Amino acid sequence: MNLVIDVGNTLVKLGVFDSESLKYKKSCIKPDFLPTLEEIYESFPAIKRSIVSSVSNLSEHQLSKLKQLYKVLILNHETEVPFKNSYTTPQTLGIDRIALVSAAAHKHKEKNVLIIDAGTCITYDFLNDKNEYLGGVISPGITMRYKSLHTFTAKLPLLEATSTKLITGNSTVSAIHSGVVNGMLFEIDGFITAYKENYENLTVILTGGDAHFLRDSIKNDIFANSNFLMEGLNHILEYNNH
Amino acid sequence: MNLVIDVGNTLVKLGVFDSESLKYKKSCIKPDFLPTLEEIYESFPAIKRSIVSSVSNLSEHQLSKLKQLYKVLILNHETEVPFKNSYTTPQTLGIDRIALVSAAAHKHKEKNVLIIDAGTCITYDFLNDKNEYLGGVISPGITMRYKSLHTFTAKLPLLEATSTKLITGNSTVSAIHSGVVNGMLFEIDGFITAYKENYENLTVILTGGDAHFLRDSIKNDIFANSNFLMEGLNHILEYNNH
Repeated sequence: MNLVIDVGNTLVKLGVFDSESLKYKKSCIKPDFLPTLEEIYESFPAIKRSIVSSVSNLSEHQLSKLKQLYKVLILNHETEVPFKNSYTTPQTLGIDRIALVSAAAHKHKEKNVLIIDAGTCITYDFLNDKNEYLGGVISPGITMRYKSLHTFTAKLPLLEATSTKLITGNSTVSAIHSGVVNGMLFEIDGFITAYKENYENLTVILTGGDAHFLRDSIKNDIFANSNFLMEGLNHILEYNNH
Repeated sequence: MNLVIDVGNTLVKLGVFDSESLKYKKSCIKPDFLPTLEEIYESFPAIKRSIVSSVSNLSEHQLSKLKQLYKVLILNHETEVPFKNSYTTPQTLGIDRIALVSAAAHKHKEKNVLIIDAGTCITYDFLNDKNEYLGGVISPGITMRYKSLHTFTAKLPLLEATSTKLITGNSTVSAIHSGVVNGMLFEIDGFITAYKENYENLTVILTGGDAHFLRDSIKNDIFANSNFLMEGLNHILEYNNH
């Protein structure tokens, strides 16, 4: 069994895989991560190896504790990955995007795959049917759009993300919700359609913290998969074990 | 003749109208606005009246100088406007948006009109063919999107707006340009298409500081008009003179 650990800015997400199958997952606030790690160590004695993404966000103490328990692969830009990387600035490619593309390479072999990760930013990553990663797109995420309207203007309020189908807002608040939410949906469908025009049989994966908020409103066919990044980490670990 | 003055955060835009026709326009940095005003006073003795939008951004001294030269209408939420306002929070409706909708009411009578103002924010305003203003949409403008990606993340650079047709960025820089520029174009075409689905014979006006940057890349038919706001101010002044 494998333990995969995705360290974000505030959350640590842990997943236990038995071969390809996610048996257990838990998210915890970063300082509370070690008790969860010990629980997992007790509950899943078959775990042999672990992989960590974004290790720079872990403390020395947390990392050394992890290394006491498991053999650890720290994902970085030197790690062998199961796809051809055509990004011209690989050292600036986010570790999380490497994991997502690895999942696509493994789960959707010889397909054209667009992975949309809706988080702080929305990232779009494209892997073609020759297993080449061609790059992608970075745009502001939902929360970032709300924050920017408030931070960079004198008068607009800071709002919480609220789902809306209404196009024409008849107040400042409803006009902002339409601009952020519908604007983002038009953007996502626009990018999917542009890829479809260029690549046959496109598979689209939607993941990330805001995927649940968006999934039912996107017009194009998509697969929503909130575990895609962890599946990618698991595959990188397997790939580096052979 | 009429003098219209649109006071922004950094620029003051002055326009001289002879009836419906814009005879002269000049933009100046705010502290340098009075010499231009005096030049206009000398050059166009036929000017009888003036209108000012966003007067809160003018100093007392500037306003009193203006009042020495001309009769001044200060556009605010009490001013009579040539359309029915169905906004539920009219006191929060930007003065510039009132001017834009007034231009639409005058120049595109009994039409469904969508006005897209691409500036700090992108605002969409909709006037139906019964001369009712129904409200609109507010989303982040181009520069705001670039700033937000830099300000609200740890690692992304601050870039200058750069036109791109490339969808897949093969570097962080080109991925950001695609996300901001193509994302915004997909959003704009998405909103236009949504309005077209609901309203026949839609007229679309594109204006604002970034209109020139976007106009050739929008797929739907639009009229680009960089003087639309000043035309609206001129019409409000005429409307309040009868």
